[in-house]
Amino acid sequence: MGKLKLLLFLFALSFGTNGLAQQSDLKVEPPFWYAKMPTENLQLMIYGENIGQYKANVQHKGITMVKQVSGDSPNYKFVYLEISPDVLAGTFSLTLTNGADTKTISYELKPRVKELKRNQGFSSEDVIYLLMPDRFANGNPNNDTVEGMLEPARRDHPSGRHGGDLKGVLDHLDYIKNLGMTAVWLTPVFENDQTPEYKAYHGYAATDMYKIDRRFGSNEEFVAFVKACHDKGLKVIMDMIHNHIGDQHWWMKDLPFKDWVHDHEVYGNTNYRGTIASDPYASKYDNNKLVKGWFVTEMPDLDQRNQQLADYLIQNTLWWIEYSGIDGIRMDTYLYPYQDYMARWAKEVIAAYPHFNIVGESWVETVAHESYWQQDKPGENDGYESYLPSVTDFQIHFAVRDAFNQGFGWETGLMKIYYALSQDRLYSDPMKNVIFLDNHDISRIYSTLGENPKHLKMAYAFLLTTRGIPQVYYGTELAFKAGPSDWGDGAKRAEMPGGWAGDSRSVFTKEGRTAEENDMHQYVTKLTNWRKTSDAVKHGKLLHFVPENNVYVYFRYTDRERVMVIMNMNDSEVTISREKHLEMLRGFTFGMDVISGKNFDLAKDFKVAGKTTTVLTLK
Amino acid sequence: MGKLKLLLFLFALSFGTNGLAQQSDLKVEPPFWYAKMPTENLQLMIYGENIGQYKANVQHKGITMVKQVSGDSPNYKFVYLEISPDVLAGTFSLTLTNGADTKTISYELKPRVKELKRNQGFSSEDVIYLLMPDRFANGNPNNDTVEGMLEPARRDHPSGRHGGDLKGVLDHLDYIKNLGMTAVWLTPVFENDQTPEYKAYHGYAATDMYKIDRRFGSNEEFVAFVKACHDKGLKVIMDMIHNHIGDQHWWMKDLPFKDWVHDHEVYGNTNYRGTIASDPYASKYDNNKLVKGWFVTEMPDLDQRNQQLADYLIQNTLWWIEYSGIDGIRMDTYLYPYQDYMARWAKEVIAAYPHFNIVGESWVETVAHESYWQQDKPGENDGYESYLPSVTDFQIHFAVRDAFNQGFGWETGLMKIYYALSQDRLYSDPMKNVIFLDNHDISRIYSTLGENPKHLKMAYAFLLTTRGIPQVYYGTELAFKAGPSDWGDGAKRAEMPGGWAGDSRSVFTKEGRTAEENDMHQYVTKLTNWRKTSDAVKHGKLLHFVPENNVYVYFRYTDRERVMVIMNMNDSEVTISREKHLEMLRGFTFGMDVISGKNFDLAKDFKVAGKTTTVLTLK
Repeated sequence: MGKLKLLLFLFALSFGTNGLAQQSDLKVEPPFWYAKMPTENLQLMIYGENIGQYKANVQHKGITMVKQVSGDSPNYKFVYLEISPDVLAGTFSLTLTNGADTKTISYELKPRVKELKRNQGFSSEDVIYLLMPDRFANGNPNNDTVEGMLEPARRDHPSGRHGGDLKGVLDHLDYIKNLGMTAVWLTPVFENDQTPEYKAYHGYAATDMYKIDRRFGSNEEFVAFVKACHDKGLKVIMDMIHNHIGDQHWWMKDLPFKDWVHDHEVYGNTNYRGTIASDPYASKYDNNKLVKGWFVTEMPDLDQRNQQLADYLIQNTLWWIEYSGIDGIRMDTYLYPYQDYMARWAKEVIAAYPHFNIVGESWVETVAHESYWQQDKPGENDGYESYLPSVTDFQIHFAVRDAFNQGFGWETGLMKIYYALSQDRLYSDPMKNVIFLDNHDISRIYSTLGENPKHLKMAYAFLLTTRGIPQVYYGTELAFKAGPSDWGDGAKRAEMPGGWAGDSRSVFTKEGRTAEENDMHQYVTKLTNWRKTSDAVKHGKLLHFVPENNVYVYFRYTDRERVMVIMNMNDSEVTISREKHLEMLRGFTFGMDVISGKNFDLAKDFKVAGKTTTVLTLK
Repeated sequence: MGKLKLLLFLFALSFGTNGLAQQSDLKVEPPFWYAKMPTENLQLMIYGENIGQYKANVQHKGITMVKQVSGDSPNYKFVYLEISPDVLAGTFSLTLTNGADTKTISYELKPRVKELKRNQGFSSEDVIYLLMPDRFANGNPNNDTVEGMLEPARRDHPSGRHGGDLKGVLDHLDYIKNLGMTAVWLTPVFENDQTPEYKAYHGYAATDMYKIDRRFGSNEEFVAFVKACHDKGLKVIMDMIHNHIGDQHWWMKDLPFKDWVHDHEVYGNTNYRGTIASDPYASKYDNNKLVKGWFVTEMPDLDQRNQQLADYLIQNTLWWIEYSGIDGIRMDTYLYPYQDYMARWAKEVIAAYPHFNIVGESWVETVAHESYWQQDKPGENDGYESYLPSVTDFQIHFAVRDAFNQGFGWETGLMKIYYALSQDRLYSDPMKNVIFLDNHDISRIYSTLGENPKHLKMAYAFLLTTRGIPQVYYGTELAFKAGPSDWGDGAKRAEMPGGWAGDSRSVFTKEGRTAEENDMHQYVTKLTNWRKTSDAVKHGKLLHFVPENNVYVYFRYTDRERVMVIMNMNDSEVTISREKHLEMLRGFTFGMDVISGKNFDLAKDFKVAGKTTTVLTLK
């Protein structure tokens, strides 16, 4: 068999289980679609020997051929259909003719799944638990190494596949739920069939955008996982990447169009300077490096200016939303593709699923650059509307880092938190910002904060009571430390002990955790579960005082509820003045510490201990 | 004589020379007005014993009494008139009656001065020279100590009056002009008759807002000074303060209204946190401290919510603009008064003098907080429109400071300049920002940059070629160093040697300057005079490249002219790639160094020396 025939043979094998009915010498994506979708448009990417030379035809009531486009490669045909809402679920035939030869595709339109808890979105009512499936728990040891896939499990290698999977997460949903989390964000679960040399356990190098990596589980297992989360009251946020793919993606052997990916020889790697995209003075050189440069040499950079590719990517997103029932998307490297494409993508996704939510990874160093990416930002004088509801608020992470690592000065230390938040006029809705202490790309915050449990608790109390959508990175609830620096990214992506059979202990149980781990775990659990009860924190207003004497005081409040938070960075206790905070304390005489249950007498000045963030519900 | 009578007697004496015709037992402000002013409104503040109990009356064609308001003190009457444009210059009578007693004020409406070079505004076409009159040059030794004024000259005291005056500046206009400056900003020249204990040589503690401090000169001398500047092609920017006055202001002995100034016992001193004004989460407590707190204990904080005061202040500005012919205003402590008042002030001033310009001192730590204050800012979602054309761009100062004092890193050192400028989307017009290396409130930049002349030259070349309106602080063209730290503010406000009779040398002459001073002076002069010829720098576009290898490259350009600037922070020479900058270099084969006159061959890669900012005009 030639290379292409072998590819198609493998496709036929792997998609056979998906209920896909199609001519076995053709690959069609999406593998199936749905009747009565929010959009009437359907693009079929058809892949097969010389299929570009065939003419497509459809004869089905309510289904119209809009256009058909052949690729630069002779083996691709893009068929654009319009499917009326009247068309019922079932199959329809698409014929492809080239002279005497006719191929027929029997294409399935499934009925849409009707369930209440699907595509729910996420908001500041939630706390998101971010985990890496490869590193969380190995529920199914049989899929650690999969026959025919390039990289086997190598648990001893910090950047190798460790064998964690969807089953592992599924087995520990109670752990996540009991921790007070309400949403789970998994780093990408798409097939990443990359070579062992390029370590793609992280999932950001997709080799097939319609398939779950078999080392994590099957497509069907992912659907079942989402359903199980919903049944437990957990939402699911899927991680996607439209900036790049893995170099082992099947497209790379036979690119549909010459301009499907950017030319690495011309643009090299990206400069990682997301600031360029919102810089009014940016050079073309820098912008090209940002947008057209490759993230790494093993990740070809997609050129979304190709219309067929753009349509393919957007449709891929809609397919996963409909297919799996996910509630939100975290879009990777949001600042690296073409801005116009990302805006179109976000607009069409939210238009199709209005209750859905998207957070874009917007890793930049200032509020000005960050806020550029949120939809409806103040002043569209540069003409760019992103349509993106949520951004990843790196400024809050930087501020917390500096608060604990700089002395308190006019604009240093704790003041950094004040400065970050006091720029919030730049966001259209800062309550939609996803805030975090750390994530899979940032060193473990516990180590960043000097491995002082008081610091981590203070930071958690801030994270869980300030404005925004908090995100907790797996293991940080257990005060995970940064691993050895020679582990590279592996140093921030350690396994959860107990996730693997034979582990000497399990952090998923109280008995298996150290005293220190239990202490932090209990602290986070108490705060998150209390947070669920607090409308003031979940969607109330924020009022704060400029930090003085290394103490930061703020309030979250609604008409019915008032929460006072006091972040005392000093080693020793300080006195909090009632008079100073009277505008918020008037009418309240005591405050209950949500952690200790202790009552503070607020009728007069009161003291809070050193190195604490005290959270009080006012009465 | 009682206190009030003594005051009035002194007023009569001092205003007698101003051509003011009025009843000698009454003080009236403004002392006179103009016919055919851009506004028809005129508020007269009348001060005299029990004058609040008198009824005002006017019988003059075209002049209407709008309202009359008595103060909380019985000795104030505020008369509001409407003066039709038909009313010709001359005098009119205002009578004040209380039972049998009638007082008559003969009030003068002068003809407006018709001259071309008046109220010209300032822009990025200009370079502003900021100087402190008390410290620049003592042209008239006879006014160093003035009989009846509280503080005598004390030249040996770093914070005492040194005797500099308007005549001193006037005598050295050629120095300023030859330095390539096109505008002069004097720190305030209003009467500051403060006690010797409170050192008001700086001028920010006005004791009479209608009078030039006699130790600087008379009102008439100020008018002559402005005229002389205009004749030399120099513009004049007047420094004003509406946030506070000096505690020896005559009002303080007999406040017009109880709410004329904020209560220091209630609010204490300000927190100096200008960020509060644009913070969506600010507490009332913090905002009150900012707005109602006093700048220092010797400067009562004006409460512009008092309508009579607000009207008085705005009218005082219009009077000085019309009276003196000044071209612009630098408004001190712009973030400290009520925002609504400052907006009204700026709006009315620009409405009356459309070619005028105003820069507000907006000393904050981020671009987000800074840009809030410029008119027409992107997104008025918070509802505040400042009407302020220009802001003092402290972010550029901070960036230059850090560029030379931090190692080059992802976001440190030279990158700070990139970060500052790449946030410019937040400004409605960053070309209107006043940019500076230092000023009278900031330590001498030469010392901040390590007293390395190469650093200062690099910084100057940046200042004079990036976007905005450059401002040079007197003495920094001579590489003035910071004075001894125990000199307080005096350490940044040294005398210009040669400005005082008997000085051992004069920096105003080439012979009097040291070799180092001449070197810097020549460098600045060359750049400023070249800048005058460059449309690209004065109002062209900016395009820059993200710094790499500690080198920052940017271009200023119009359709007809192109300037390339290369800031090489490395100690050693570096090679600049033609290929990388081709988008701007295409079509150009050489660049002339505006300092050395040397030609660079741009047809291929070329080298620039270490620790230089190279400015090339492309050919």
